[in-house]
Amino acid sequence: MTGDTQRSVPHPAWLPDDAFAAVGSRRVVVAGDGVLAGTVAEEVAAATARFGGAFSRLEVGDGVSDAELVLTLAHSDSSSHDHSTDESFRFTREAGAVVVQAETDAGMLHGLFHVVRLGEAAFEGPDADETHAPATDLRMLDHWDNVDAHPVMGQVERGYSGGSIFYDNGFVRADLSRVERYARLLAAVGINRVAINNVNVHAREAHLLTDDLGDVVRIAAVFRRWGIRVHLSVSFASPITLGGLTTSDPLDPGVAHWWVRTAARVWDAIPDFGGFVVKADSEGQPGPFAYGRTHADGANMLAAAVEPYDGLIHWRAFVYDHRQDWRDRSTDRARAAFDHFQPLDGAFSANVILQVKYGPLDFQVREPVSPVLAAMPRTQIALELQVTQEYTGQQKHAVYLGPQWSQILGFRFWDLAGGDGGSPTVADLATGRGKAAADPGTGTWHKPAGGFAAVSNVGDDEFWTGHPFAQANLYAYGRLCWDPTLDPEAVLDEWVGLTFPGAPDAVGQAVHAVLDRSWETYEQYTAPLGVGFMVRPGHHYGPDVDGYEYTPWGTYHFADRDGIGVDRTARTGTGYASQYPSPWRETYESPSTCPDELLLFFHHVPYSHVLHSGKTVIQHVYDTHFEGVERVEAMIRAWSAVSKLVDPRLSERVAERFAEQLRSATEWRDQVNTYFLRKSGVPDERGRTIYR
Amino acid sequence: MTGDTQRSVPHPAWLPDDAFAAVGSRRVVVAGDGVLAGTVAEEVAAATARFGGAFSRLEVGDGVSDAELVLTLAHSDSSSHDHSTDESFRFTREAGAVVVQAETDAGMLHGLFHVVRLGEAAFEGPDADETHAPATDLRMLDHWDNVDAHPVMGQVERGYSGGSIFYDNGFVRADLSRVERYARLLAAVGINRVAINNVNVHAREAHLLTDDLGDVVRIAAVFRRWGIRVHLSVSFASPITLGGLTTSDPLDPGVAHWWVRTAARVWDAIPDFGGFVVKADSEGQPGPFAYGRTHADGANMLAAAVEPYDGLIHWRAFVYDHRQDWRDRSTDRARAAFDHFQPLDGAFSANVILQVKYGPLDFQVREPVSPVLAAMPRTQIALELQVTQEYTGQQKHAVYLGPQWSQILGFRFWDLAGGDGGSPTVADLATGRGKAAADPGTGTWHKPAGGFAAVSNVGDDEFWTGHPFAQANLYAYGRLCWDPTLDPEAVLDEWVGLTFPGAPDAVGQAVHAVLDRSWETYEQYTAPLGVGFMVRPGHHYGPDVDGYEYTPWGTYHFADRDGIGVDRTARTGTGYASQYPSPWRETYESPSTCPDELLLFFHHVPYSHVLHSGKTVIQHVYDTHFEGVERVEAMIRAWSAVSKLVDPRLSERVAERFAEQLRSATEWRDQVNTYFLRKSGVPDERGRTIYR
Repeated sequence: MTGDTQRSVPHPAWLPDDAFAAVGSRRVVVAGDGVLAGTVAEEVAAATARFGGAFSRLEVGDGVSDAELVLTLAHSDSSSHDHSTDESFRFTREAGAVVVQAETDAGMLHGLFHVVRLGEAAFEGPDADETHAPATDLRMLDHWDNVDAHPVMGQVERGYSGGSIFYDNGFVRADLSRVERYARLLAAVGINRVAINNVNVHAREAHLLTDDLGDVVRIAAVFRRWGIRVHLSVSFASPITLGGLTTSDPLDPGVAHWWVRTAARVWDAIPDFGGFVVKADSEGQPGPFAYGRTHADGANMLAAAVEPYDGLIHWRAFVYDHRQDWRDRSTDRARAAFDHFQPLDGAFSANVILQVKYGPLDFQVREPVSPVLAAMPRTQIALELQVTQEYTGQQKHAVYLGPQWSQILGFRFWDLAGGDGGSPTVADLATGRGKAAADPGTGTWHKPAGGFAAVSNVGDDEFWTGHPFAQANLYAYGRLCWDPTLDPEAVLDEWVGLTFPGAPDAVGQAVHAVLDRSWETYEQYTAPLGVGFMVRPGHHYGPDVDGYEYTPWGTYHFADRDGIGVDRTARTGTGYASQYPSPWRETYESPSTCPDELLLFFHHVPYSHVLHSGKTVIQHVYDTHFEGVERVEAMIRAWSAVSKLVDPRLSERVAERFAEQLRSATEWRDQVNTYFLRKSGVPDERGRTIYR
Repeated sequence: MTGDTQRSVPHPAWLPDDAFAAVGSRRVVVAGDGVLAGTVAEEVAAATARFGGAFSRLEVGDGVSDAELVLTLAHSDSSSHDHSTDESFRFTREAGAVVVQAETDAGMLHGLFHVVRLGEAAFEGPDADETHAPATDLRMLDHWDNVDAHPVMGQVERGYSGGSIFYDNGFVRADLSRVERYARLLAAVGINRVAINNVNVHAREAHLLTDDLGDVVRIAAVFRRWGIRVHLSVSFASPITLGGLTTSDPLDPGVAHWWVRTAARVWDAIPDFGGFVVKADSEGQPGPFAYGRTHADGANMLAAAVEPYDGLIHWRAFVYDHRQDWRDRSTDRARAAFDHFQPLDGAFSANVILQVKYGPLDFQVREPVSPVLAAMPRTQIALELQVTQEYTGQQKHAVYLGPQWSQILGFRFWDLAGGDGGSPTVADLATGRGKAAADPGTGTWHKPAGGFAAVSNVGDDEFWTGHPFAQANLYAYGRLCWDPTLDPEAVLDEWVGLTFPGAPDAVGQAVHAVLDRSWETYEQYTAPLGVGFMVRPGHHYGPDVDGYEYTPWGTYHFADRDGIGVDRTARTGTGYASQYPSPWRETYESPSTCPDELLLFFHHVPYSHVLHSGKTVIQHVYDTHFEGVERVEAMIRAWSAVSKLVDPRLSERVAERFAEQLRSATEWRDQVNTYFLRKSGVPDERGRTIYR
């Protein structure tokens, strides 16, 4: 399974051989047909061979009296489930013997990995009978990989883990063994859809849709064995650039026909192809606006082309004026997605999914949850997260994003923090379940649901993700897609258990000490109180407080000698706060009720403004920046105490990353503190060193 | 003479055919041998054929009774002057007949262009007998051209005029016709040396010294016909990278021997080769420091290798710590060249020239004159200027640099402004003439002199220089090298007369209205009062007030809510001011005597500090930024009134550049004003619009 075009045999991540010890040492039966049942059988056969168990492949319903683990289809005739999206499984344990039964072979595969995750615990404890099903059928990862290396963005846009696992030097790799390993890792955490190319579709990538479709067929074949469907990002201008037409007007019959024929060819080659991802009329990408058409016109035309195949159109809502004038304080980029899309609620076809970033700006360490998620009850909306750490340390900083995602998933638009007045969570809205499935109060629910999407963080790096600890983010994303209510610390436990099997407890404790509050730590030493950015333009790494302040990108903090923040209130500001339903519109509207962590996102306040914490804004800036660096130092101490207990290569990589994190955090601390000391003139009340 | 590998036939710049009307319509005799006499004869033959004059080629001393212009060697035997550097000529006019007589054919060529520049005026007026000689033998242009396009810097580092005229796609161009046109333009303004590759010597360019020497031979052959010698920039690591040695230690005999052999090969191929340009131990370039050797060790080793051929080593003094910590206010990049080199005065060999930028930082619109120029009386020093507008608008802004250079050339280190207490000017120091040749007071003079060098601004652009008006900078540089005492406005007159022959007077008046104060205008709308930078990092175009404030580059302004500027005094600052001799060290030391335009270079002062102009610093910032944009608007009006009177392509190019200059100047005005309003809180006393 080594690929000589890959840099090295990659780290096993959360599927080292030892993770299969519990399964592999038992008598296991696999029963049922289907491609994924075959995959399950191969996994079990390999594990039992390694760990001394026994493996039998039987027909459904055959006698299995002495088996300790049975993985089986519920019915011998699985053909009726060929097109089923049912991925659930039933887990029963009776006197230490486990049966996993599923309606489809996909359910069997998820059941197997459920048992793997549990390890010995799967076979211990009282008898059990549980049914497990994913919160949504749509659990997707987007790869912003370029076929040709982009002159600025490189081979993977926002890639901090080496080159692409799919492409090399302008072509799809001949050796896809690394993709196979990746598909297995994704299957083990429940991901079932992957878009394999950048949403910024350049000339070379565009051809995946047509001339190079054969290569997509090869990639899809690899993912298929792991229950994962492949999607492509496509350019809205494809009828012109690939089809030789003179227009890509969505209402032009020739354009629609071109897409119909193109979709037919794609599904003819890949019957289980997933669909198209589109970034249109955003940051220079082409779209329907050129023809005076709406986003709905554009999306629905594509949707019609893919509808016969149950194909999906993921249409991104990341649309804003990226040629803004910093002098103009009335334009607010944060408003843009809502302003563009909310009026189109109900206008999209049933197989269009509007893909909405979690916040109104761009994957900052702290943003309010995007109001678009609450504003379109008649639209399928996917919540878009970012596993790749674009603004959160670029896989040089140890930042575990599970707590951020968990907080977003649990946010309730119609209840204040901690409340549960019967209103759905963001996860409910994205999955169409829970409180969003049937809310008798409003009658507006039975929400159509778009599930989850996120930007992947892997590359051809030895550890997949640059920082070995960034594997935990990929792991957590998959697990939270399956069950958004999981506790992110418990998910981290799972990841540690699988990734460091047999390691002393101290290793797991150290990982927790490093990662549990690492998102908060990163927030502490970077942009304060929700104001965002303050990063170096272009690559977005490291501090530059005024880096975006006078640019066309619409991301400002408006700091002056008296105060800082963006007034987004309805009363005196841009009105963004009123895009939220009550009670949040009122909560955000007033600095006296706005949560501290978002204060500067919603309000321009004097440095002397007193937070709910009792500190002034300026002292909060100083305190958090000093504390953030102290916490990084503590993280390093915690890890150093156990680093000799793990694989020395991993240990070396982590040490190298920590050195950079400490350097960078210190630079953040000093630049931010100096910037605000120079501007405010207010000294640190504790007299610590702030350079002038 | 068209080159089909070039984009188009380039604009004739200051040598349109019509510039030769006065010469071409007369009876002209050319007498004398030598390559350049041949060039003179060709020029005259072409001009007389075009304008109906008559051309005779005679022997020196032949009767020439009816000639209206005679260009002749002084002696029939020119062989004694083969290696002479005498470029002077004698111009006599008697009853309207002109004789140009020179000791060498180079002098003849300069004499011809002298007559061309004068036009009809050469033949008019009273009888005359004048001897013209250049202020220095060393009048050089450096090309920062890369053979291979650099991934960041492109084909020409700091090039704002398209690609290289020398190189294309990794090779020296087969068609050098554009180089020939360029050589002719340079000869016409008196340039006599050209370094043809970037001082940052990358892998590809390094081979010009060895494998690709044949291509340098071809380029040298083109320049030779125009009296111009070719130099190469070389890497100090060449013995390793090209020679396969394990060291480039200047005291290693093998290294010295490698350079001796390499120099022998170069001069064998190009007997009039000029020498090597070296950027060592600066901004990542290799140098003698790696071996614990000094700059003198390094330069002298190279000097020994080229000495048998009268070769020169141009050793750049642009050496500083580019990994500075912004937190450390004691390190001062401005001090670096002096601190590095002044202790080495007298240690350099006779054929080493220390090439010193005009200011201590990096070609800013305003800097104090570098104290290194005054600090090394026993060292040949070349003054380095920058014709390419790196920090002065990148040939998008109309900025005539003649006045800046004239001010620098006329600066006297031992006299206050306007004084002439017997002390030499910077031009005297660079040329070893004037007051520097013999100063009875100090007895330290008879200064060895390194002449002038500058970074060229040409590329394969249709107008050579991007902005057609930037041609005037190239023209003025050549003319000021020949005679540093020329009035830059008079030089501009010359350029206008040659470039727009026959145009109505209004054109010349408009060019003057645009360019005469354009340097000051650019200063007005960019970084104020000598503080420098405030540009976008990397490309250095457009405003970013804090762009370099927290970087390792050592270029800071230290603006806070109370004041701005860098304390470089001896008493409380970095001590840079004391690098100057009296009276300037005392003058710069005190804010009460420091000239306004350099105040923030030398002092950190409150915004309320009152300038000699009577304005506060903050009001000066606002006023100059408003006035700068108003002046650009006036420039555009002035030019618009005459733009239809010139070549429409040139007019179109100028209009396009003016649109960008106005946009950019407005952006500068608003960013700088807003930055300081936010920081100081002081409103504009005239109540103009400053965005908050």
